[in-house]
Amino acid sequence: MTEPDGIRAFVAEHAHELAADLDEWLRIPGISAQPQYHPDVQRSADWLAAAFTRTGFPVSEVWPTDGLPAVYAEWPSEDPGAPTVLVYGHHDVQPVDPLELWEHPPFEPTLAIVDGVEVLRARGASDDKGQLLFHLLGLRAHLAQRATQGKATPAVTLKFLIEGEEESGSPNLATLMTQRRDRLDADVVVITDTGMLAPGVPSACTGMRGLVSCRVDFAGPGLDLHSGVFGGAVPNPATALARLVAALHDNEGRVQIPGFYDDVLALTPAERELFARIPFDEAQFLRTAQSGALFGEAGQSTLERLGARPTAEVNGIWSGYMGPGGKTIVPSDAHVHLSFRLVANMDRAAVVAGVDEFVAAHTPAGITAVVEWNGQGVAPLVVGINTPAYGALERSISRAFDGLPVLPTREGGSGPEAEIEAIIGAPLVFLGVGLPDDQIHAPNEKVTVSMLHKGAEAAAYLWAELARTDLAA
Amino acid sequence: MTEPDGIRAFVAEHAHELAADLDEWLRIPGISAQPQYHPDVQRSADWLAAAFTRTGFPVSEVWPTDGLPAVYAEWPSEDPGAPTVLVYGHHDVQPVDPLELWEHPPFEPTLAIVDGVEVLRARGASDDKGQLLFHLLGLRAHLAQRATQGKATPAVTLKFLIEGEEESGSPNLATLMTQRRDRLDADVVVITDTGMLAPGVPSACTGMRGLVSCRVDFAGPGLDLHSGVFGGAVPNPATALARLVAALHDNEGRVQIPGFYDDVLALTPAERELFARIPFDEAQFLRTAQSGALFGEAGQSTLERLGARPTAEVNGIWSGYMGPGGKTIVPSDAHVHLSFRLVANMDRAAVVAGVDEFVAAHTPAGITAVVEWNGQGVAPLVVGINTPAYGALERSISRAFDGLPVLPTREGGSGPEAEIEAIIGAPLVFLGVGLPDDQIHAPNEKVTVSMLHKGAEAAAYLWAELARTDLAA
Repeated sequence: MTEPDGIRAFVAEHAHELAADLDEWLRIPGISAQPQYHPDVQRSADWLAAAFTRTGFPVSEVWPTDGLPAVYAEWPSEDPGAPTVLVYGHHDVQPVDPLELWEHPPFEPTLAIVDGVEVLRARGASDDKGQLLFHLLGLRAHLAQRATQGKATPAVTLKFLIEGEEESGSPNLATLMTQRRDRLDADVVVITDTGMLAPGVPSACTGMRGLVSCRVDFAGPGLDLHSGVFGGAVPNPATALARLVAALHDNEGRVQIPGFYDDVLALTPAERELFARIPFDEAQFLRTAQSGALFGEAGQSTLERLGARPTAEVNGIWSGYMGPGGKTIVPSDAHVHLSFRLVANMDRAAVVAGVDEFVAAHTPAGITAVVEWNGQGVAPLVVGINTPAYGALERSISRAFDGLPVLPTREGGSGPEAEIEAIIGAPLVFLGVGLPDDQIHAPNEKVTVSMLHKGAEAAAYLWAELARTDLAA
Repeated sequence: MTEPDGIRAFVAEHAHELAADLDEWLRIPGISAQPQYHPDVQRSADWLAAAFTRTGFPVSEVWPTDGLPAVYAEWPSEDPGAPTVLVYGHHDVQPVDPLELWEHPPFEPTLAIVDGVEVLRARGASDDKGQLLFHLLGLRAHLAQRATQGKATPAVTLKFLIEGEEESGSPNLATLMTQRRDRLDADVVVITDTGMLAPGVPSACTGMRGLVSCRVDFAGPGLDLHSGVFGGAVPNPATALARLVAALHDNEGRVQIPGFYDDVLALTPAERELFARIPFDEAQFLRTAQSGALFGEAGQSTLERLGARPTAEVNGIWSGYMGPGGKTIVPSDAHVHLSFRLVANMDRAAVVAGVDEFVAAHTPAGITAVVEWNGQGVAPLVVGINTPAYGALERSISRAFDGLPVLPTREGGSGPEAEIEAIIGAPLVFLGVGLPDDQIHAPNEKVTVSMLHKGAEAAAYLWAELARTDLAA
């Protein structure tokens, strides 16, 4: 594929700037989950704000929160009618324990060649500092290309909101975004915190699962009873709760909560076809899970189960005697932690109501049930692959990967993205270049350098693509 | 009913001797479960051995064990061909905690009139010291009656084996009995450690349930997994174990272990009719259990479920996260303690094999199961109500209760009786006069004095009845 815009050449020529920036920033151990590192999270925010300024952003601010600071930067486009893009990412990093498993000090970035591929090792290299800094390189490439047209600003008005508490569950993000809502107005949101399938398999996340979770408490006899004197004549809450848990799924893994699948946006045949093209190494997946077998909802592939289907999981269960040997009691009570991963277009309140109804229907006489929900949960998110914003993203990524098709993927986990989409009220796409083996959240985190360059290219193309796209179409 | 033998009159006239003996013995705090009381258990044994001697037993010995001592006494009958009777009971007592709930000091025996009924309060008053000492009074009544026939010995050769570790699970009883087997030879065994339904409702225990128990461990993924990244695609061991537990019973409480009921000796219509005549206060039972409902095997009354039907109970279950809030994991493993109460004529090995087969059949792909059994368990025991020994017991009790019918009952718990029966190889009957409200094992234990007198009368009749009964019939 030709490269008429000079983007790739610019990225290659200036890649050393990205490397130098990363080497500086990755040395700041901004671990949000550990209070002793909170001054470093502040230093990390200050460093990033300075980097935005250095890149040319006329606005670059550190935004305090009730917790750790976010960074906000803005660069208005001079083009009349240019759309506004809000980029979301985070500058804090995961803890590094267990430290003894690191082959290099986690905050001393180290370049290495692994299987002929250049990688940069450090905590945060992939999640999320490397992925944020490719944007600065990509933006400089875009500006260089804009300069050939006599323009001194990006083709879109760019806003970056980079929070400092993502690895701690984003406890202050919604409040911050709501308070600063007028400054954050945008036509499209770009999330930069995900990955691709493989270096030669460009892809884009198109969904995150939502989550609601609860604890169910079953109370039976008022005290632990002698199983000889009472066993067989009174309801056993542990047995009753096990029967409730067993009833959660049919024999083929389908969740039996009333109405559970009613709102699920089924994959279209085209989407299923795209899912089927995603390379999936079952043996590797089982090795990672250290599981002897796959199991899940019948009629769905593993990737569909993980990304596009809701689940009901037991996270913990406990009742009665849990020590060594035996104790012949009928326990007084029994408890279970349940969580439900949701997919678009499921409604959290409907799931909560369905579970409450299910628990009531599976509470036998003599047992009292209490269901306690853990907050409001997280809404599911899905990106429509036929939307103008996704089309622009797809074209940009494809160009960076020499015209290869871009596979839409879905992630099984749950993040703040649905809330961001709801607050901003604009379509959202994911541009991320992490790889499955980046070991984010684990020792020896790395990022593949060529992927950062692809990310910079894709970002550079994306601003031009979005500028010429009718996002409201 | 006439009382031609003078037994009742003797018991009434000499009741003060029983009271004086009890007052002495109950002051010895022979708690076998608490090492600081072990010198008192020894004193208790010495006191009892002296009491046997004082009563006239030519043989009275304290038998040491690897734990706490038993007492053995023997009084041969002078009658040629007299049968031999072995009486089993225990001289140790339960701990007294919580002490603050006692209305009187537990080792200062206190007489009280409650609702017009004389009761003696102390730890051990009912379980088992009062019930052993009624035997000495009853024996003196029997000997007084024998004296009128010119006899100086009981009508049967009497042997008493009174252990000192029953409240600690009889850990040395089988060894002791096996070592002393030749001295313990008997034609019938009388267990004196149970109760009757009510002061006006004479009854006799005719069965104890057996017990086997195990722990089932399910191992799934090699580590706790992120439920977003893996949930819905691998087997969850907590879910799998709950499904196994749920499959233990059908919807009507019937145990689904293969072959579980095959060997169960069903109640005969006559036995069921007798069971149905046992007064049962459902409201009181539920209050005691602090349970809001009854539940058990369909088609069986509560007393049948407790005494004559086997059970499968979850004693404890645990897996994954058991703390506050939520933790979105697929747990790595799950565990359950199961116990099975057995009734005659069930075979422990067959139940163990059935459970092992059941667990294997309910272990899904990707889960590894281990079943660990807690020792050999306890065999079930049933007394045939048509046997000569039971007939003699029934007639003796009925006479003590002015001709009232004697209701056969069954206890739900498990004790050493089946093992005693197996070692001695002789039929076994239960003569006990405890009452359901004696609060054995609890604060404020009491015994109803009139029941002790009935016990003495019944014992006195029993020796004469057994002497004239063909036990081999």
